[in-house]
Amino acid sequence: MNTTIAEDENDAVLVAPTNFSMVEDCIYRSSFPQPCNFPFLQTLNLRSIIYLCPEPYPQQNLDFLQSHNIQLFQFGIEGKTDLSVSTGNDTIMKALKVLIDVRNHPVLIHCNRGKHRTGCIVGCLRKFQNWCLTCVLEEYQQFAGPKSRTTDLKFIETFDTISLRQCLYSIIYKYQGYASMKPRLMYKDDNLQKPQLASA
Amino acid sequence: MNTTIAEDENDAVLVAPTNFSMVEDCIYRSSFPQPCNFPFLQTLNLRSIIYLCPEPYPQQNLDFLQSHNIQLFQFGIEGKTDLSVSTGNDTIMKALKVLIDVRNHPVLIHCNRGKHRTGCIVGCLRKFQNWCLTCVLEEYQQFAGPKSRTTDLKFIETFDTISLRQCLYSIIYKYQGYASMKPRLMYKDDNLQKPQLASA
Repeated sequence: MNTTIAEDENDAVLVAPTNFSMVEDCIYRSSFPQPCNFPFLQTLNLRSIIYLCPEPYPQQNLDFLQSHNIQLFQFGIEGKTDLSVSTGNDTIMKALKVLIDVRNHPVLIHCNRGKHRTGCIVGCLRKFQNWCLTCVLEEYQQFAGPKSRTTDLKFIETFDTISLRQCLYSIIYKYQGYASMKPRLMYKDDNLQKPQLASA
Repeated sequence: MNTTIAEDENDAVLVAPTNFSMVEDCIYRSSFPQPCNFPFLQTLNLRSIIYLCPEPYPQQNLDFLQSHNIQLFQFGIEGKTDLSVSTGNDTIMKALKVLIDVRNHPVLIHCNRGKHRTGCIVGCLRKFQNWCLTCVLEEYQQFAGPKSRTTDLKFIETFDTISLRQCLYSIIYKYQGYASMKPRLMYKDDNLQKPQLASA
Protein backbone atom coordinates (compact mmCIF):
# COMPACT_ATOMS: atom_id res chain seq x y z
CA MET A 1 0.00 0.00 0.00
CA ASN A 2 2.78 2.42 0.90
CA THR A 3 4.49 1.76 -2.41
CA THR A 4 1.29 2.65 -4.23
CA ILE A 5 1.02 5.91 -2.31
CA ALA A 6 4.59 6.87 -3.16
CA GLU A 7 4.02 6.08 -6.81
CA ASP A 8 0.81 8.10 -6.83
CA GLU A 9 2.47 11.11 -5.34
CA ASN A 10 5.44 11.00 -7.64
CA ASP A 11 3.90 10.06 -10.94
CA ALA A 12 0.15 9.70 -11.12
CA VAL A 13 -2.16 12.43 -12.27
CA LEU A 14 -4.01 13.83 -9.27
CA VAL A 15 -7.77 14.27 -9.47
CA ALA A 16 -9.06 16.97 -7.13
CA PRO A 17 -12.70 16.68 -6.00
CA THR A 18 -15.08 19.03 -7.81
CA ASN A 19 -15.26 22.49 -6.23
CA PHE A 20 -12.00 21.88 -4.37
CA SER A 21 -10.21 24.89 -2.96
CA MET A 22 -7.86 25.93 -0.22
CA VAL A 23 -9.63 28.16 2.30
CA GLU A 24 -6.72 28.92 4.60
CA ASP A 25 -3.48 27.25 5.63
CA CYS A 26 -4.54 23.68 6.42
CA ILE A 27 -8.26 24.29 5.73
CA TYR A 28 -9.71 22.90 2.48
CA ARG A 29 -13.20 22.67 0.98
CA SER A 30 -14.70 20.47 -1.72
CA SER A 31 -17.65 18.45 -2.92
CA PHE A 32 -18.08 14.84 -1.79
CA PRO A 33 -14.76 13.04 -2.43
CA GLN A 34 -14.93 10.00 -4.69
CA PRO A 35 -12.45 7.09 -4.62
CA CYS A 36 -10.68 8.57 -7.67
CA ASN A 37 -9.88 11.59 -5.47
CA PHE A 38 -8.17 9.60 -2.71
CA PRO A 39 -4.59 9.92 -4.10
CA PHE A 40 -5.16 13.68 -4.31
CA LEU A 41 -6.51 13.82 -0.74
CA GLN A 42 -3.43 11.96 0.46
CA THR A 43 -1.28 14.88 -0.65
CA LEU A 44 -3.19 17.14 1.76
CA ASN A 45 -2.10 15.00 4.68
CA LEU A 46 -5.46 15.50 6.38
CA ARG A 47 -5.96 15.03 10.09
CA SER A 48 -9.74 15.32 9.92
CA ILE A 49 -12.79 15.74 7.73
CA ILE A 50 -15.89 17.78 8.54
CA TYR A 51 -18.83 16.20 6.75
CA LEU A 52 -22.04 18.23 6.70
CA CYS A 53 -24.66 15.76 5.39
CA PRO A 54 -26.93 13.36 7.34
CA GLU A 55 -26.34 10.41 4.98
CA PRO A 56 -23.94 7.73 6.29
CA TYR A 57 -20.37 7.97 5.05
CA PRO A 58 -19.68 5.34 2.36
CA GLN A 59 -17.62 2.33 3.45
CA GLN A 60 -14.90 3.02 0.85
CA ASN A 61 -14.45 6.52 2.26
CA LEU A 62 -14.45 5.21 5.84
CA ASP A 63 -11.76 2.71 4.88
CA PHE A 64 -9.68 5.48 3.32
CA LEU A 65 -10.03 7.55 6.50
CA GLN A 66 -9.12 4.66 8.73
CA SER A 67 -6.06 3.69 6.72
CA HIS A 68 -4.79 7.28 6.86
CA ASN A 69 -5.74 7.96 10.45
CA ILE A 70 -8.16 10.75 9.51
CA GLN A 71 -10.90 11.58 12.01
CA LEU A 72 -14.43 12.09 10.73
CA PHE A 73 -16.65 14.78 12.29
CA GLN A 74 -20.14 14.42 10.89
CA PHE A 75 -22.76 17.14 11.33
CA GLY A 76 -25.93 15.96 9.64
CA ILE A 77 -27.56 18.97 8.01
CA GLU A 78 -30.30 18.14 5.51
CA GLY A 79 -29.86 19.63 2.04
CA LYS A 80 -31.85 22.83 1.41
CA THR A 81 -32.11 23.50 5.17
CA ASP A 82 -32.68 27.12 6.13
CA LEU A 83 -29.76 27.36 8.54
CA SER A 84 -31.14 30.43 10.29
CA VAL A 85 -33.56 28.22 12.21
CA SER A 86 -32.12 27.55 15.66
CA THR A 87 -31.15 23.89 15.11
CA GLY A 88 -29.33 24.77 11.88
CA ASN A 89 -27.48 27.59 13.56
CA ASP A 90 -26.50 25.36 16.51
CA THR A 91 -25.13 22.68 14.20
CA ILE A 92 -23.10 25.17 12.19
CA MET A 93 -21.70 26.55 15.44
CA LYS A 94 -20.64 23.06 16.54
CA ALA A 95 -19.00 22.43 13.17
CA LEU A 96 -17.20 25.78 13.35
CA LYS A 97 -15.71 24.90 16.72
CA VAL A 98 -14.18 21.78 15.19
CA LEU A 99 -13.08 23.74 12.12
CA ILE A 100 -11.13 26.42 13.93
CA ASP A 101 -9.50 24.04 16.38
CA VAL A 102 -6.00 23.72 14.95
CA ARG A 103 -5.61 20.34 16.62
CA ASN A 104 -7.90 19.06 13.86
CA HIS A 105 -5.86 20.57 11.03
CA PRO A 106 -5.23 19.95 8.19
CA VAL A 107 -9.00 19.63 7.72
CA LEU A 108 -11.29 19.18 4.72
CA ILE A 109 -14.87 20.48 4.87
CA HIS A 110 -17.34 18.97 2.48
CA CYS A 111 -21.04 18.35 1.97
CA ASN A 112 -22.42 16.93 -1.25
CA ARG A 113 -21.64 19.49 -3.94
CA GLY A 114 -19.48 21.85 -1.89
CA LYS A 115 -21.79 24.74 -2.64
CA HIS A 116 -24.37 25.43 0.08
CA ARG A 117 -23.65 23.85 3.47
CA THR A 118 -19.90 24.10 2.88
CA GLY A 119 -20.32 27.64 1.51
CA CYS A 120 -22.22 28.68 4.63
CA ILE A 121 -19.65 27.38 7.09
CA VAL A 122 -16.82 29.00 5.09
CA GLY A 123 -18.85 32.22 5.02
CA CYS A 124 -19.12 32.16 8.82
CA LEU A 125 -15.38 31.53 9.09
CA ARG A 126 -14.71 34.55 6.86
CA LYS A 127 -16.90 36.76 9.05
CA PHE A 128 -14.97 35.43 12.04
CA GLN A 129 -11.82 36.51 10.19
CA ASN A 130 -13.23 40.03 9.80
CA TRP A 131 -13.73 39.82 6.03
CA CYS A 132 -16.17 42.43 4.78
CA LEU A 133 -19.61 41.01 3.99
CA THR A 134 -19.40 41.75 0.26
CA CYS A 135 -16.21 39.66 -0.04
CA VAL A 136 -17.75 36.86 2.02
CA LEU A 137 -20.85 36.67 -0.15
CA GLU A 138 -18.79 36.94 -3.33
CA GLU A 139 -16.79 33.89 -2.27
CA TYR A 140 -20.01 31.97 -1.48
CA GLN A 141 -21.34 32.82 -4.94
CA GLN A 142 -18.14 31.86 -6.68
CA PHE A 143 -18.66 28.27 -5.53
CA ALA A 144 -22.47 28.16 -5.63
CA GLY A 145 -22.66 29.80 -9.07
CA PRO A 146 -26.21 29.90 -10.43
CA LYS A 147 -27.27 27.61 -7.53
CA SER A 148 -26.71 30.45 -5.03
CA ARG A 149 -29.51 30.54 -2.40
CA THR A 150 -30.96 33.64 -0.78
CA THR A 151 -31.54 31.78 2.51
CA ASP A 152 -27.81 30.93 2.68
CA LEU A 153 -26.77 34.52 1.95
CA LYS A 154 -29.18 35.75 4.62
CA PHE A 155 -27.85 33.18 7.10
CA ILE A 156 -24.24 34.25 6.52
CA GLU A 157 -25.20 37.90 6.76
CA THR A 158 -26.95 37.50 10.11
CA PHE A 159 -24.57 34.94 11.62
CA ASP A 160 -23.36 36.19 14.97
CA THR A 161 -19.60 35.80 15.25
CA ILE A 162 -19.56 37.30 18.73
CA SER A 163 -21.02 34.19 20.30
CA LEU A 164 -18.46 32.09 18.40
CA ARG A 165 -15.69 34.23 19.80
CA GLN A 166 -17.09 33.82 23.29
CA CYS A 167 -17.16 30.03 22.92
CA LEU A 168 -13.59 30.03 21.77
CA TYR A 169 -11.89 31.57 24.74
CA SER A 170 -9.06 29.10 24.45
CA ILE A 171 -8.35 29.10 20.71
CA ILE A 172 -7.35 32.51 19.58
CA TYR A 173 -5.90 34.47 16.73
CA LYS A 174 -2.29 35.30 17.18
CA TYR A 175 0.11 37.09 14.89
CA GLN A 176 2.63 34.76 13.41
CA GLY A 177 4.59 34.65 10.17
CA TYR A 178 7.74 35.88 8.50
CA ALA A 179 7.43 39.25 10.14
CA SER A 180 5.08 38.35 13.01
CA MET A 181 2.31 39.97 11.02
CA LYS A 182 0.23 37.13 9.69
CA PRO A 183 -2.85 36.47 11.80
CA ARG A 184 -3.64 32.80 11.98
CA LEU A 185 -5.41 30.38 14.21
CA MET A 186 -3.17 29.00 16.89
CA TYR A 187 -3.75 26.67 19.76
CA LYS A 188 -3.25 28.40 23.08
CA ASP A 189 -4.02 26.01 25.89
CA ASP A 190 -5.79 22.83 26.80
CA ASN A 191 -8.91 24.27 28.42
CA LEU A 192 -11.09 23.69 25.40
CA GLN A 193 -13.45 20.77 25.64
CA LYS A 194 -12.80 18.28 22.87
CA PRO A 195 -15.62 18.71 20.35
CA GLN A 196 -18.03 15.82 20.28
CA LEU A 197 -18.07 13.48 17.35
CA ALA A 198 -21.72 13.83 16.37
CA SER A 199 -21.68 10.63 14.37
CA ALA A 200 -19.21 8.58 12.39
CA MET B 1 1.78 53.64 10.61
CA ASN B 2 2.49 50.50 12.64
CA THR B 3 -0.29 51.41 15.05
CA THR B 4 -2.69 51.66 12.14
CA ILE B 5 -1.64 48.22 10.91
CA ALA B 6 -2.19 46.70 14.32
CA GLU B 7 -5.58 48.33 14.60
CA ASP B 8 -6.53 47.15 11.14
CA GLU B 9 -5.61 43.61 11.89
CA ASN B 10 -7.37 43.51 15.20
CA ASP B 11 -10.54 45.42 14.49
CA ALA B 12 -11.11 46.66 10.97
CA VAL B 13 -13.17 44.81 8.44
CA LEU B 14 -10.86 43.32 5.83
CA VAL B 15 -11.69 43.81 2.17
CA ALA B 16 -10.23 41.09 -0.05
CA PRO B 17 -9.60 41.96 -3.70
CA THR B 18 -12.21 40.61 -6.12
CA ASN B 19 -11.51 37.05 -7.25
CA PHE B 20 -9.12 36.52 -4.33
CA SER B 21 -8.20 32.97 -3.45
CA MET B 22 -5.46 30.91 -1.90
CA VAL B 23 -3.80 28.71 -4.50
CA GLU B 24 -1.34 26.87 -2.27
CA ASP B 25 0.49 27.51 0.98
CA CYS B 26 1.91 31.01 0.49
CA ILE B 27 0.58 31.42 -3.07
CA TYR B 28 -2.42 33.70 -3.60
CA ARG B 29 -4.32 35.02 -6.65
CA SER B 30 -6.62 37.97 -7.16
CA SER B 31 -7.73 40.81 -9.39
CA PHE B 32 -5.86 44.14 -9.32
CA PRO B 33 -5.61 45.21 -5.65
CA GLN B 34 -7.12 48.59 -4.82
CA PRO B 35 -6.04 50.78 -1.88
CA CYS B 36 -9.06 49.57 0.11
CA ASN B 37 -7.52 46.07 -0.09
CA PHE B 38 -4.17 47.04 1.41
CA PRO B 39 -5.07 46.19 5.05
CA PHE B 40 -6.22 42.77 3.83
CA LEU B 41 -3.01 42.25 1.83
CA GLN B 42 -1.00 43.09 4.92
CA THR B 43 -2.42 40.03 6.66
CA LEU B 44 -0.88 37.84 3.94
CA ASN B 45 2.58 39.07 4.85
CA LEU B 46 3.63 39.04 1.19
CA ARG B 47 7.23 38.88 0.13
CA SER B 48 6.46 39.49 -3.55
CA ILE B 49 3.83 40.21 -6.16
CA ILE B 50 3.72 38.83 -9.70
CA TYR B 51 1.93 41.35 -11.90
CA LEU B 52 0.97 40.16 -15.36
CA CYS B 53 -0.09 43.37 -17.17
CA PRO B 54 2.03 45.79 -19.25
CA GLU B 55 0.52 48.93 -17.68
CA PRO B 56 2.73 50.70 -15.11
CA TYR B 57 1.96 49.87 -11.47
CA PRO B 58 0.07 52.77 -9.81
CA GLN B 59 2.10 54.95 -7.45
CA GLN B 60 -0.17 54.15 -4.48
CA ASN B 61 0.45 50.45 -4.96
CA LEU B 62 4.20 51.00 -5.39
CA ASP B 63 4.21 52.98 -2.14
CA PHE B 64 2.39 50.15 -0.38
CA LEU B 65 4.92 47.63 -1.69
CA GLN B 66 7.86 49.75 -0.68
CA SER B 67 6.57 50.37 2.83
CA HIS B 68 6.06 46.64 3.34
CA ASN B 69 9.24 45.50 1.62
CA ILE B 70 7.35 43.58 -1.07
CA GLN B 71 9.19 42.92 -4.34
CA LEU B 72 7.33 43.48 -7.61
CA PHE B 73 7.91 41.13 -10.53
CA GLN B 74 6.14 42.54 -13.59
CA PHE B 75 5.58 40.46 -16.70
CA GLY B 76 3.77 42.64 -19.22
CA ILE B 77 1.30 40.47 -21.05
CA GLU B 78 -1.31 42.38 -23.08
CA GLY B 79 -4.92 41.51 -22.31
CA LYS B 80 -6.54 39.04 -24.70
CA THR B 81 -3.11 37.73 -25.80
CA ASP B 82 -3.09 34.23 -27.22
CA LEU B 83 -0.43 32.84 -24.90
CA SER B 84 0.37 29.91 -27.14
CA VAL B 85 2.39 32.19 -29.42
CA SER B 86 6.05 31.85 -28.53
CA THR B 87 6.51 35.22 -26.79
CA GLY B 88 3.45 34.57 -24.60
CA ASN B 89 4.68 31.14 -23.68
CA ASP B 90 8.17 32.46 -22.85
CA THR B 91 6.75 35.16 -20.59
CA ILE B 92 4.52 32.70 -18.73
CA MET B 93 7.54 30.44 -18.25
CA LYS B 94 9.55 33.31 -16.76
CA ALA B 95 6.68 34.19 -14.44
CA LEU B 96 6.33 30.54 -13.38
CA LYS B 97 9.98 30.39 -12.42
CA VAL B 98 9.45 33.32 -10.06
CA LEU B 99 6.19 31.80 -8.80
CA ILE B 100 7.60 28.44 -7.77
CA ASP B 101 10.73 29.87 -6.21
CA VAL B 102 9.93 29.63 -2.50
CA ARG B 103 12.35 32.46 -1.78
CA ASN B 104 9.67 34.74 -3.24
CA HIS B 105 6.87 33.38 -1.02
CA PRO B 106 4.36 34.38 0.22
CA VAL B 107 3.47 35.64 -3.26
CA LEU B 108 0.35 37.17 -4.81
CA ILE B 109 -0.30 36.71 -8.55
CA HIS B 110 -2.59 39.19 -10.20
CA CYS B 111 -3.47 40.74 -13.54
CA ASN B 112 -6.44 43.04 -14.01
CA ARG B 113 -9.51 40.93 -13.24
CA GLY B 114 -7.76 37.79 -12.01
CA LYS B 115 -9.47 35.69 -14.65
CA HIS B 116 -7.38 35.09 -17.76
CA ARG B 117 -3.65 35.79 -17.41
CA THR B 118 -3.75 34.80 -13.73
CA GLY B 119 -5.94 31.79 -14.56
CA CYS B 120 -3.44 30.63 -17.18
CA ILE B 121 -0.42 30.80 -14.90
CA VAL B 122 -2.30 29.00 -12.12
CA GLY B 123 -3.41 26.40 -14.67
CA CYS B 124 0.23 25.80 -15.63
CA LEU B 125 1.16 25.48 -11.96
CA ARG B 126 -1.58 22.87 -11.48
CA LYS B 127 -0.28 20.86 -14.41
CA PHE B 128 3.17 21.09 -12.88
CA GLN B 129 1.59 19.69 -9.70
CA ASN B 130 0.20 16.74 -11.66
CA TRP B 131 -3.45 17.79 -11.40
CA CYS B 132 -5.59 16.10 -14.02
CA LEU B 133 -6.51 18.39 -16.91
CA THR B 134 -10.25 18.37 -16.15
CA CYS B 135 -9.60 19.69 -12.63
CA VAL B 136 -7.19 22.32 -13.94
CA LEU B 137 -9.69 23.61 -16.50
CA GLU B 138 -12.52 23.52 -13.97
CA GLU B 139 -10.51 25.76 -11.67
CA TYR B 140 -9.78 28.18 -14.55
CA GLN B 141 -13.48 28.33 -15.35
CA GLN B 142 -14.48 28.86 -11.74
CA PHE B 143 -12.62 32.18 -11.77
CA ALA B 144 -13.24 33.17 -15.40
CA GLY B 145 -16.94 32.33 -15.25
CA PRO B 146 -18.78 33.31 -18.43
CA LYS B 147 -15.62 35.16 -19.56
CA SER B 148 -13.78 31.85 -20.04
CA ARG B 149 -11.66 31.88 -23.23
CA THR B 150 -11.02 28.94 -25.53
CA THR B 151 -7.51 30.20 -26.34
CA ASP B 152 -6.62 30.13 -22.64
CA LEU B 153 -8.00 26.61 -22.18
CA LYS B 154 -6.04 25.48 -25.24
CA PHE B 155 -2.89 27.15 -23.91
CA ILE B 156 -3.17 25.41 -20.54
CA GLU B 157 -3.92 22.10 -22.21
CA THR B 158 -0.83 22.24 -24.44
CA PHE B 159 1.54 23.84 -21.93
CA ASP B 160 4.66 21.73 -21.64
CA THR B 161 5.55 21.18 -17.98
CA ILE B 162 8.57 19.06 -18.88
CA SER B 163 10.59 22.08 -19.96
CA LEU B 164 9.59 23.84 -16.75
CA ARG B 165 10.82 20.90 -14.73
CA GLN B 166 14.09 20.93 -16.65
CA CYS B 167 14.59 24.62 -15.93
CA LEU B 168 13.96 24.05 -12.27
CA TYR B 169 16.65 21.58 -11.45
CA SER B 170 17.35 23.35 -8.20
CA ILE B 171 13.84 23.93 -6.84
CA ILE B 172 12.12 20.65 -6.32
CA TYR B 173 9.16 19.00 -4.74
CA LYS B 174 9.93 17.31 -1.48
CA TYR B 175 7.68 15.49 0.90
CA GLN B 176 7.10 17.47 4.04
CA GLY B 177 4.28 17.74 6.51
CA TYR B 178 2.86 16.19 9.62
CA ALA B 179 3.60 12.70 8.38
CA SER B 180 6.23 13.53 5.76
CA MET B 181 3.54 12.99 3.16
CA LYS B 182 2.65 16.43 1.91
CA PRO B 183 4.37 17.35 -1.33
CA ARG B 184 5.27 20.99 -1.43
CA LEU B 185 7.71 23.29 -3.07
CA MET B 186 10.92 23.58 -1.14
CA TYR B 187 14.14 25.38 -1.79
CA LYS B 188 17.00 22.96 -2.22
CA ASP B 189 20.18 24.83 -3.00
CA ASP B 190 21.58 28.07 -4.29
CA ASN B 191 22.33 27.06 -7.88
CA LEU B 192 19.27 28.74 -9.29
CA GLN B 193 19.84 32.02 -11.03
CA LYS B 194 17.84 34.78 -9.39
CA PRO B 195 14.91 35.53 -11.71
CA GLN B 196 15.20 38.85 -13.47
CA LEU B 197 12.93 41.67 -12.49
CA ALA B 198 11.38 42.38 -15.88
CA SER B 199 10.21 45.81 -14.79
CA ALA B 200 9.19 47.58 -11.62
